[in-house]
Amino acid sequence: MASETWVLTDAAQSLHEEDFENREVSEGQDFSLSRRTLRGGKREGVDTIEVDNGTFRFVVVPTRGMGLWRGWLDKTEVGWHSPVKGPVHPNYVTLNEPSGLGWLEGFDELLCRCGLVSNGAPELGPGGGYQYPLHGRIANLPAHHVAASVEGDELSITGVVDETRFLFQKLRLTATYKTRLGQKGVTIVDEVTNLSGDPAEMQLLYHINFGPPVIESGARVAAPVKTIVPRDPRAAEGVETWESYQAPQAGFAEQVYFFKLLAGDDGRTHVLLKDAHSSRGVSLRYDTRQLPCFTLWKNTPLEPDGYVTGLEPGTNYPNSRSFEGEQGRVVKLGPGEKVKFELELEVHDDAETVSAAEQQIAALAEGTVPEVFPKPQPGWTQT
Amino acid sequence: MASETWVLTDAAQSLHEEDFENREVSEGQDFSLSRRTLRGGKREGVDTIEVDNGTFRFVVVPTRGMGLWRGWLDKTEVGWHSPVKGPVHPNYVTLNEPSGLGWLEGFDELLCRCGLVSNGAPELGPGGGYQYPLHGRIANLPAHHVAASVEGDELSITGVVDETRFLFQKLRLTATYKTRLGQKGVTIVDEVTNLSGDPAEMQLLYHINFGPPVIESGARVAAPVKTIVPRDPRAAEGVETWESYQAPQAGFAEQVYFFKLLAGDDGRTHVLLKDAHSSRGVSLRYDTRQLPCFTLWKNTPLEPDGYVTGLEPGTNYPNSRSFEGEQGRVVKLGPGEKVKFELELEVHDDAETVSAAEQQIAALAEGTVPEVFPKPQPGWTQT
Amino acid sequence: MASETWVLTDAAQSLHEEDFENREVSEGQDFSLSRRTLRGGKREGVDTIEVDNGTFRFVVVPTRGMGLWRGWLDKTEVGWHSPVKGPVHPNYVTLNEPSGLGWLEGFDELLCRCGLVSNGAPELGPGGGYQYPLHGRIANLPAHHVAASVEGDELSITGVVDETRFLFQKLRLTATYKTRLGQKGVTIVDEVTNLSGDPAEMQLLYHINFGPPVIESGARVAAPVKTIVPRDPRAAEGVETWESYQAPQAGFAEQVYFFKLLAGDDGRTHVLLKDAHSSRGVSLRYDTRQLPCFTLWKNTPLEPDGYVTGLEPGTNYPNSRSFEGEQGRVVKLGPGEKVKFELELEVHDDAETVSAAEQQIAALAEGTVPEVFPKPQPGWTQT
Repeated sequence: MASETWVLTDAAQSLHEEDFENREVSEGQDFSLSRRTLRGGKREGVDTIEVDNGTFRFVVVPTRGMGLWRGWLDKTEVGWHSPVKGPVHPNYVTLNEPSGLGWLEGFDELLCRCGLVSNGAPELGPGGGYQYPLHGRIANLPAHHVAASVEGDELSITGVVDETRFLFQKLRLTATYKTRLGQKGVTIVDEVTNLSGDPAEMQLLYHINFGPPVIESGARVAAPVKTIVPRDPRAAEGVETWESYQAPQAGFAEQVYFFKLLAGDDGRTHVLLKDAHSSRGVSLRYDTRQLPCFTLWKNTPLEPDGYVTGLEPGTNYPNSRSFEGEQGRVVKLGPGEKVKFELELEVHDDAETVSAAEQQIAALAEGTVPEVFPKPQPGWTQT
Repeated sequence: MASETWVLTDAAQSLHEEDFENREVSEGQDFSLSRRTLRGGKREGVDTIEVDNGTFRFVVVPTRGMGLWRGWLDKTEVGWHSPVKGPVHPNYVTLNEPSGLGWLEGFDELLCRCGLVSNGAPELGPGGGYQYPLHGRIANLPAHHVAASVEGDELSITGVVDETRFLFQKLRLTATYKTRLGQKGVTIVDEVTNLSGDPAEMQLLYHINFGPPVIESGARVAAPVKTIVPRDPRAAEGVETWESYQAPQAGFAEQVYFFKLLAGDDGRTHVLLKDAHSSRGVSLRYDTRQLPCFTLWKNTPLEPDGYVTGLEPGTNYPNSRSFEGEQGRVVKLGPGEKVKFELELEVHDDAETVSAAEQQIAALAEGTVPEVFPKPQPGWTQT
Repeated sequence: MASETWVLTDAAQSLHEEDFENREVSEGQDFSLSRRTLRGGKREGVDTIEVDNGTFRFVVVPTRGMGLWRGWLDKTEVGWHSPVKGPVHPNYVTLNEPSGLGWLEGFDELLCRCGLVSNGAPELGPGGGYQYPLHGRIANLPAHHVAASVEGDELSITGVVDETRFLFQKLRLTATYKTRLGQKGVTIVDEVTNLSGDPAEMQLLYHINFGPPVIESGARVAAPVKTIVPRDPRAAEGVETWESYQAPQAGFAEQVYFFKLLAGDDGRTHVLLKDAHSSRGVSLRYDTRQLPCFTLWKNTPLEPDGYVTGLEPGTNYPNSRSFEGEQGRVVKLGPGEKVKFELELEVHDDAETVSAAEQQIAALAEGTVPEVFPKPQPGWTQT
């Protein structure tokens, strides 16, 4: 049982390991881990950590709030191809651009966190300008502490990112990616801590995005649905076919659906995305007590514009901060209090595990007829 | 015939050549080329490429949208001395500063491109704040791919800069500077591509700026003028002397004139700027079918404040984006479509070539009496 | 008498000394000086200079407008612990964030300058958004020239920072820190120059901040007060106890007081901050003709939120730029004109020097009964 820890970055000590590359983390095993600073264009200075557990390989980006940039199961890429060619250094992402939508200039990850003060639609503040920019700031803040460790057959990467403004929020994200030798995926364990001596509120949404080959014409999403509500009239147009994907279509405008999902006795639920042949896919498992809201984002224009879908478990729906606050969809934290969030991402590369996932979802949904609202609903969506 | 290409930067491969310096690019010839990353203050991390064709030397700035920072013909500098001491790293240029004028904190180039979504005066958006900041974003975006090549006696530098936001614009500038052994200047060949599967619109204006020694008291500009319109009452004050420059004057407020220029059968026109003795100057040649609008900017305060004039061929006049759109002065691009822009900058260091340039302009203008409007005109200028 | 100068940074020459570390600056003496570039998180790329005069050690941050980050007298730290863990690179400080308060994301220094175009409360501009963001821009601009020199037993560090926008301000700060062998503190000599050929206006406020161990329950501030005015009703609540500090208290809202201070015939005044036992403290001495306004900021929440007080000599009070302009509290500079500001910071580590400082202040105040306004006053504060 090997057990070792490496501190890769620690701003407090001005420590930043440059040469941590391709080190075997456990002898006789196929784990590998490398740190790299990207160069050129808007990537200049972006730190990445690549982990390979022998089966699944993935890249974490400490410079971008510990986002998960992309994964590969053998040669199959997991993630999507944004028209934004990232990972983009936060210095090039103008979150505070007047439209409130500058976040979109850095968006190309497989998984990025939206929060911590807010996520969702931009919202104007009292002085003009968007006080709450689209999806918040955490995805564009760098980790000030990053460590890797191996214990037995499990490798983990942890990064600490502070979203802090003197006189305002003092929130800390401690994000951990764990993967075992041969695991077809990765497990995420996040903690958010209120560092303040005063109470605080926070929001967190995981924006988990997939393009081809998982989505394609005829791909489907499956989930144990209790309730589904379209976000707006555009989403309402497609509510009856929410489960399936079309081929890329020029000028496609995004469709967004809000869900309550069913869960097992342990609070855990399961969402599956699978290709048209049910021969590959991805599963997401998480605790609905931690992440009670689920959002599905369908955005299937032509490929150069970003053919992608997002599975988005969150503490809230991505409406404006004040609307979600009015609905009580924020997490309240006492002084020094922490809250934990766990997610498991599994990649399926055969029909058997896709089928097993479908059966697991069917078991969770058994006996429940989904309530499908044909139109936006008060309390769920803003008019 | 030597023929060679060097990739200096390629973000997709995280390639960024640090040590490409003073390499002779063609044996037995005087070409040289060097890449350098500047250090200190707001220059920190700015990449530059210096090209010397044996006669004319110039510096291109990939970090600033492939701008042309400054040139030198022997010891004579071509460019200007801004109170901004650049080249300034885009991270220090707050394009989205509330006044919409943050662009001015990075402005010190001989030639910078204004665009691609918009250029011209800042324009407020629906959420408050300037949706279209002064002169757009392209001059403050870094090239993600830069290559140099030599073929025979011609050296060229190409950079690719994307102005892209997911769900919004997906425009690509491919900027090329070409120069031949001994050429007293440089030729620019730009392409703008709509990477999207949907149609797009774009604007481009070349802000080409000269200070002393080319401009001085009695310096003049010459062009084959069809029509001239002052931008505002301040410009109208000086419309009768639009062709000549005054000595530096404290508190001078800028004057801007909009032109239609005449061109030859090949569509090409010619603008000359010459000193008071007609002994040196610069010529600009370009295609009016690509760049139908010409703007002259006169800004002649005391030297510490930036004694400078701008010759500005563009797809449009630098009015607000929506006004220019209403006048049809935008370029429409279909999905995947490209448009090309070419410009030639020649530096004159003797009376003979100045005189030859004047004759060429006179020939283009022959038989046409310029229409000089004493006041701003509807459709040309915003009130 | 050794005499030597080292240029550490000069952007004009692209010079940036990486390896200037721990060099003995004067043989046989205990001076040391080192330059270091910090790594990791929001510190990435921040340049610091550490000076040790054998008794007092301090860190200057050229990247942050030549701020004074922290000092140490033997093992006693002078400064404060902000929830912001700096020094923060300006690229992560969104001065132009819509609230106008982005400056607070970089604020953790012992001494930072607020200015030069403006300081104080954010003020909305005509286009929406805060034209004058909180405390101005100078603290988040990098020095483009930095030099160290030693002459006899005095070491000095000088940095030059330009706050310049083409067509707008052209202000230059030349900031110098001087310290002698064994001096228990540091002397600051700043010059602000109007580089323009036109007249200009400027403001400067020194935000000098102390946390534990100097402040604690029962700590006190002493100054030769002529007049004191609370900034707002919140400050008015505590005006009778303005001189003393409470223990950290959850949810404490800041209290701010504006002062006219008395001075000696040479124009110099003296402010003392001392702990509850009068056994240690800090003195500030400066010229009231240069810095006629004094502000005291009391912010004593629980320690994770930043238990701190600020002593703030300035050309003005930190009200909005236009209000202070109406009161004439701006410095007018002719073309090319300079103005000088001097400040001395002394750290007390024994009861004797604390007592001596108190006597000096008492002498300045002798015969004057302070005018204490119980409420905000017109002309002093905005309603």
